[in-house]
Amino acid sequence: MHKRLFIPGPVEVREDILKKMSTPMIGHRSKDASKLQKSISGKMKKLMYTDNEILLSTSSGSGLMEGAIRSCTVKRAAVFSIGAFGDRWYKMAVCNGVQADKISSEPGQPTLPEMVDKTLATGKYDLITITHNETATGVMNPVEEIAEVMKKYPDVVYCLDAVSSLGGTKIEVDKLGVDICITSSQKCLGLPPGLSICSISQKALDAAKKVEFRGLYFDLLELYEYIKKKDYQYPSTPSLSHMFALDYQLDRIFEEGLENRFERHRKMAEYVRQWAKERFALFADERYASNTVTAVKNTRNIDVSELNKKLGEVGYVISNGYGQLKDITFRIAHMADTTLDEIKGLIESIDKIIM
Amino acid sequence: MHKRLFIPGPVEVREDILKKMSTPMIGHRSKDASKLQKSISGKMKKLMYTDNEILLSTSSGSGLMEGAIRSCTVKRAAVFSIGAFGDRWYKMAVCNGVQADKISSEPGQPTLPEMVDKTLATGKYDLITITHNETATGVMNPVEEIAEVMKKYPDVVYCLDAVSSLGGTKIEVDKLGVDICITSSQKCLGLPPGLSICSISQKALDAAKKVEFRGLYFDLLELYEYIKKKDYQYPSTPSLSHMFALDYQLDRIFEEGLENRFERHRKMAEYVRQWAKERFALFADERYASNTVTAVKNTRNIDVSELNKKLGEVGYVISNGYGQLKDITFRIAHMADTTLDEIKGLIESIDKIIM
Repeated sequence: MHKRLFIPGPVEVREDILKKMSTPMIGHRSKDASKLQKSISGKMKKLMYTDNEILLSTSSGSGLMEGAIRSCTVKRAAVFSIGAFGDRWYKMAVCNGVQADKISSEPGQPTLPEMVDKTLATGKYDLITITHNETATGVMNPVEEIAEVMKKYPDVVYCLDAVSSLGGTKIEVDKLGVDICITSSQKCLGLPPGLSICSISQKALDAAKKVEFRGLYFDLLELYEYIKKKDYQYPSTPSLSHMFALDYQLDRIFEEGLENRFERHRKMAEYVRQWAKERFALFADERYASNTVTAVKNTRNIDVSELNKKLGEVGYVISNGYGQLKDITFRIAHMADTTLDEIKGLIESIDKIIM
Repeated sequence: MHKRLFIPGPVEVREDILKKMSTPMIGHRSKDASKLQKSISGKMKKLMYTDNEILLSTSSGSGLMEGAIRSCTVKRAAVFSIGAFGDRWYKMAVCNGVQADKISSEPGQPTLPEMVDKTLATGKYDLITITHNETATGVMNPVEEIAEVMKKYPDVVYCLDAVSSLGGTKIEVDKLGVDICITSSQKCLGLPPGLSICSISQKALDAAKKVEFRGLYFDLLELYEYIKKKDYQYPSTPSLSHMFALDYQLDRIFEEGLENRFERHRKMAEYVRQWAKERFALFADERYASNTVTAVKNTRNIDVSELNKKLGEVGYVISNGYGQLKDITFRIAHMADTTLDEIKGLIESIDKIIM
């Protein structure tokens, strides 16, 4: 029996989207391939509220995160971490010999605008990375407030990991002044994993020009220049299957309506949080609780593996805690095309098991 | 109308394999994900004739090529180039600050074992890269003879780009002493693009331990250690769709029988070459002509775009020349699950147009 996924990626993928993954192949140097990429670009710009160019990468979101920090840090990067994925971004800098410092928040807490301000006021940094939504802790950072602070630092390249939020919550890239906004297919976009997407600003491209060793596959400047020169085709063969599915799914997303989609995510999040507070507690500071994934503090000390096993019998899967939070939290994703009714069905099943 | 692809990747993908791309998602941290990867590993080892470990990468083959030269060159790499893909491997070294020299052959000519011997005799290099099959020129390198030379240099890491040959011709990785053998999904394996695969030897892993900055996403040592520690799961979310399809297709490949499969490729290649020699000429030195793709020297100076347009009307696509060879060659791929009858149908259609 297939188990419906309520884990924070890969998410459950609708059958019509899965079918698009079976589209017969076309040449990646064909006019049809250019047309497909241009179609995706236009739609992604709309979803990201940006006029910046869109780059696709056949990789997980981690690939583009590594590409961003390596390609565009000229001097030194300030990596703001609120959990496992911020830590990973710092590790990417270290593994590439990119000068960087990590500024961590307490688990469950966000990156506060004053932390960004204080850090950048030193004048040491020309790039920052922010995790929009930390999948490990269920915290969503206050990016609007951070954007206000960033206005004071117009020369700093602003990279945003929106892997587990874009498509589920409004991220107005240009309004927020985000230079590189990164997401991937298997979270709120509701596709299988295997493709990542970013927007890139002229400021970020200009920074990349000053970096000597940017590698090749994740060199964002190379990708940008290549699609410009080659009519939106890629240096190496991209995952056309994902591109067909993404192009199709973006139309479904606009059919639903962006505001409706974000509202659906808000409602699902509120429902799960309400339940979590009644039965357990939230791991995240509630003021910054995520609209796409809830990390539940396991205050009843339930056996999450056992719970998942029993949920599996009725066709559901949730997620245990991530990394160091493995035993003290469990996580319920409410993202992509999941409906409030499906969330209610899941919660009812959990209650039947634990109550 | 769908046009059947006779281009050197992406190849035409059989309908039953396309269907597997639509398999519903599973968690990438689940026992099922471990089982899937282990199943693929065992089968890939058999296909590669190796006991070395198998790594999967959600990327095109270029990603693992970059990972290999960056992760495992301690001192200096000798990059043997017989065309565009060897040139790209050299570019990867340069873009990563890896010390390397390029040793090029004339277009249409192979890397000869004596070139490898002469280069390595200098003692300057601890890693070499060889393109097994150059998609741009239709040349297949004499890897058995190169293997003989390599026996003299047991400390040198041997990387082989088998992207457009593995699965279409026999490559006995362990017998040839190849340390990193790289391939990808969209060529002779007959899958859509988006996944690449390599084998890795202990010697290559030991070399990686001595390299300080290996990056993260394509750090082959990191990938290896992660799958060993985490029961064959990956640091970031892999393309599960491709993994389902690959696992399925490997069974189909063994059902056909490896020797039968290689023989089918030989026969298709012979048929295309015979025709090419009658109507045009081979671009490759015939002694080293590829069994998976034929580059035809455009001696009649036909308009290849026009030919492709007319072929399109009967549902076929072939490929123009690659890069600098764009106008002076055209290419017909005879790889993956294409049959001799399909090749005959294509050739007949071409003849109708050009004769």
